[in-house]
Amino acid sequence: MVRLQYQLELSYTVADPGADFFFYIHPAETAQQHVASENLTVSQPDANWEIQLTDGMVQRCLRLAARPGPLTLRYESTIDIAHHLVDPAQIPEVPVARLPLDVLQYIYPSRYCQSDRLSKFAMDQFGYLPQGYTRAKAICEWVQQNVTFRSNTSSGTTAAVDTLLERVGVCRDFAHLMIALCRAINLPARFVSGTDYGADPSLGPPDFHAYVEVYMGDRWYLFDPSNTAIPMGMMRLATGRDAADVAFATIFGPVMSAPPRIHVEAIEDPERGWSLPVHTPFALSTG
Amino acid sequence: MVRLQYQLELSYTVADPGADFFFYIHPAETAQQHVASENLTVSQPDANWEIQLTDGMVQRCLRLAARPGPLTLRYESTIDIAHHLVDPAQIPEVPVARLPLDVLQYIYPSRYCQSDRLSKFAMDQFGYLPQGYTRAKAICEWVQQNVTFRSNTSSGTTAAVDTLLERVGVCRDFAHLMIALCRAINLPARFVSGTDYGADPSLGPPDFHAYVEVYMGDRWYLFDPSNTAIPMGMMRLATGRDAADVAFATIFGPVMSAPPRIHVEAIEDPERGWSLPVHTPFALSTG
Amino acid sequence: MVRLQYQLELSYTVADPGADFFFYIHPAETAQQHVASENLTVSQPDANWEIQLTDGMVQRCLRLAARPGPLTLRYESTIDIAHHLVDPAQIPEVPVARLPLDVLQYIYPSRYCQSDRLSKFAMDQFGYLPQGYTRAKAICEWVQQNVTFRSNTSSGTTAAVDTLLERVGVCRDFAHLMIALCRAINLPARFVSGTDYGADPSLGPPDFHAYVEVYMGDRWYLFDPSNTAIPMGMMRLATGRDAADVAFATIFGPVMSAPPRIHVEAIEDPERGWSLPVHTPFALSTG
Amino acid sequence: MVRLQYQLELSYTVADPGADFFFYIHPAETAQQHVASENLTVSQPDANWEIQLTDGMVQRCLRLAARPGPLTLRYESTIDIAHHLVDPAQIPEVPVARLPLDVLQYIYPSRYCQSDRLSKFAMDQFGYLPQGYTRAKAICEWVQQNVTFRSNTSSGTTAAVDTLLERVGVCRDFAHLMIALCRAINLPARFVSGTDYGADPSLGPPDFHAYVEVYMGDRWYLFDPSNTAIPMGMMRLATGRDAADVAFATIFGPVMSAPPRIHVEAIEDPERGWSLPVHTPFALSTG
Repeated sequence: MVRLQYQLELSYTVADPGADFFFYIHPAETAQQHVASENLTVSQPDANWEIQLTDGMVQRCLRLAARPGPLTLRYESTIDIAHHLVDPAQIPEVPVARLPLDVLQYIYPSRYCQSDRLSKFAMDQFGYLPQGYTRAKAICEWVQQNVTFRSNTSSGTTAAVDTLLERVGVCRDFAHLMIALCRAINLPARFVSGTDYGADPSLGPPDFHAYVEVYMGDRWYLFDPSNTAIPMGMMRLATGRDAADVAFATIFGPVMSAPPRIHVEAIEDPERGWSLPVHTPFALSTG
Repeated sequence: MVRLQYQLELSYTVADPGADFFFYIHPAETAQQHVASENLTVSQPDANWEIQLTDGMVQRCLRLAARPGPLTLRYESTIDIAHHLVDPAQIPEVPVARLPLDVLQYIYPSRYCQSDRLSKFAMDQFGYLPQGYTRAKAICEWVQQNVTFRSNTSSGTTAAVDTLLERVGVCRDFAHLMIALCRAINLPARFVSGTDYGADPSLGPPDFHAYVEVYMGDRWYLFDPSNTAIPMGMMRLATGRDAADVAFATIFGPVMSAPPRIHVEAIEDPERGWSLPVHTPFALSTG
Repeated sequence: MVRLQYQLELSYTVADPGADFFFYIHPAETAQQHVASENLTVSQPDANWEIQLTDGMVQRCLRLAARPGPLTLRYESTIDIAHHLVDPAQIPEVPVARLPLDVLQYIYPSRYCQSDRLSKFAMDQFGYLPQGYTRAKAICEWVQQNVTFRSNTSSGTTAAVDTLLERVGVCRDFAHLMIALCRAINLPARFVSGTDYGADPSLGPPDFHAYVEVYMGDRWYLFDPSNTAIPMGMMRLATGRDAADVAFATIFGPVMSAPPRIHVEAIEDPERGWSLPVHTPFALSTG
Repeated sequence: MVRLQYQLELSYTVADPGADFFFYIHPAETAQQHVASENLTVSQPDANWEIQLTDGMVQRCLRLAARPGPLTLRYESTIDIAHHLVDPAQIPEVPVARLPLDVLQYIYPSRYCQSDRLSKFAMDQFGYLPQGYTRAKAICEWVQQNVTFRSNTSSGTTAAVDTLLERVGVCRDFAHLMIALCRAINLPARFVSGTDYGADPSLGPPDFHAYVEVYMGDRWYLFDPSNTAIPMGMMRLATGRDAADVAFATIFGPVMSAPPRIHVEAIEDPERGWSLPVHTPFALSTG
């Protein structure tokens, strides 16, 4: 089991006439990921906010209406993750005919994952590999090997087709490309917004992270196509079709933002079964 | 009230090793739209099929696994639509902060409605109009007036940005552009797959139709940006973020398709309150 | 030496108020390609036309102003091509610093060859190969192997980035992609409009053809990335940055076109040194 | 007549193994624009450089091969411009059939001016305006009014279709959009690289400028679609199909660049006929 301490500080300056925020900064509550304790502080005492459950009660969306002036959110929590660990060889793909209906949407193209345009390429490249977890893994590794991580090379309109052409991007772009390639061969894949435990400090301070889950067998398995973090230490905030759905902050109104300050630490305590996240050959799922 | 008779015949030739189909050909069952009777015949007696409810039990997805050979579906039904009719002047927009969470996704960009790229244009063009139903109507009319309907001018990858550039398309393209422009000013808008009652025969035989619903007040209102049908006679099959979600048929496998044969007729019977669909100044909603 | 007999018939129906045509249907006159005899017939006796030399007096542009009514052009000629044949191992690339100024434009991006977007991909894929003819050949073969020829899969707006994504197209698309990849590693490459001697009849009747020339050593060498014709039998009509420059017919006005009827035949006569075009391991240039 | 003093300093740090530069920093020598005196200093005494004439001997391309280390170019010159000033009402458009062949390329699409995709929009918007200078002017003003100038909103891959969608950009983007719209209605238009005399200091320090020339009557007329400078004081460096052709510096090799330092001053001396550039209702041409 993995125990994480997560601390977050978000700072904004809101101009007239105020602004509405939708945050996905709370860890999801899944069968495998549990919030042991948490605390949220909002600096504007009169700000109107509430938390709404989404996606089958698993995700938590914080809606907040702020008045003009400075706004700071401080959130900290303790999270336990008991990963579902499976031998990759035991994980089959699911024929389209047997996909649950709520999973089906994840084989369709979306704003940043235009899988419809990549079908021939993906079929040529991955269509004839043996089906199963290893095929999703092959797509993940292809993206890792063919795209270079470089800050400030993409923008809010950059999508999978751009990244496939230009072969450069940040974690979000790697995720979009892997998702698009999976969908193009009918593997359901979704975007995960989370945190980047174990990321190389040379890439910058700790940050939110974007990665991928692929539906195989009877659940969603985790992949990190940018290969910048340790999957076992990645904490899920929210999932969606792509980054359009699950930005950590969606803001309506005139706002200046400071970079988020994030700290995630893993607690090691063998007696209680808490071990540090490590790279593992097993397939990982948080439910 | 409107009573419609709807008949549909879909014909395919399925090659080895068979194919999986997802159909949205059943009318949705909403508070305003009711199926009085229906009958479905599938020509392959051993084909495996089932109907699953989606989108809050409102839509019906027919999943079908066909073996190789000819496949014909015949469906007919009688539908009653009791439109919610409202004076446009009474319909307010809903501030983002008060949008229901399940409506929120419809202000985000999607595969064919890249509203993120149109924000400045939409804001310049429509941002300063008085809020309310008339603003959505203004967007609808702008699309009608600035895009020309022409068959075979778009493909499965054509999206709203292409239509805004090239100013030509079919009903699906009109719908995508209107949706993208609405979302760009934070008006929730969704894609509707339905039928084209009242369409000009010069545009071709009766067909499936694509149109738009915009969320205002406390419900979804209907718009026909291609202006090719009579909204009061349009029957809703399914709604989604865009055409990627609600194709009338999504097919996995080697299949040749014949054009769909559709017939929709309105029944007039004043004694029972059934009148023919007409153009109306009222805002229409089917729930 | 190769001797070709070339016959062409183009048929149009011109509507009111007439139309202007620019044709590139005459073989270029280069150091290696010579027109022994030719004859042009224009069905409208009062049509106003002239032939202008372009591109250093090498190409011939036929400008024609037609009145409403049917218009037919018949052109036939006999062409001798004495290819410059070189051992590929002897052909060096030219450093950018030593490129002639009139060649330089062919390393810049153009409408259908957006080399600027492919620089990282091309550099990763081909940047580290040994310089010389074999590198251009490697690009040509990569395009052949990774793109599938299929009629009616592209349109007048399809460009290299689309073909790199979608991996399907016709000869023009193969040419654009190869050109873009060459330019992305600073190899000057240009688009050639010509004829498709030796094309597989299963691809359709004889037709105009699009292929590529790459500047190396001190001249332009010929490549056929769609691999559909026999390069030694391909006759050059015109060259340009991409298809935008050298369409065989550019038409201004309301015109209906019939498919071009083309016949190209090679004459074998060992005594006169005329042999049939064959595939050859030598590099070919027509000057 | 306008007399300008032009001073330029360009600074680079060249890394191993050196770099090749192509500069368009010398004023063009045209019938109307004359360089009275000039001086170029290159800081690397052993750098290999030469100036080549292009575009009918009118433009001057400075080719320079630099070794590793710092590189500074200082250029200063005195330029006399005797504009061709014409009453706009006297300037006709030229029918395509009568366009000179070397002008024809400027109605074809190019990398950043995809006029082929804008034909219907341009025809709807401008196709029915009276032909002549005022139609080009109408396009120029439409671009001014519908696009907002904002620094750092575009990149090296931004093209006219992006600017038409997103309605924001810098002078280069305004120029590309105006050019694309002109070509879409068969008005020949080209990209000019020059300097921004009279630009509002709030937009930044004096800089290179991008504007447009449209071919009408028997010459090229000047337009400033970003409306940021005084056309009479704009000095032409080079013209091309779009920015791909005439960057002020095209660099091959590992180089860090400082922002260019530019100073342009107009000399007033009524006795010698030198007056300050002003906005004028006349059409301007520099030949």
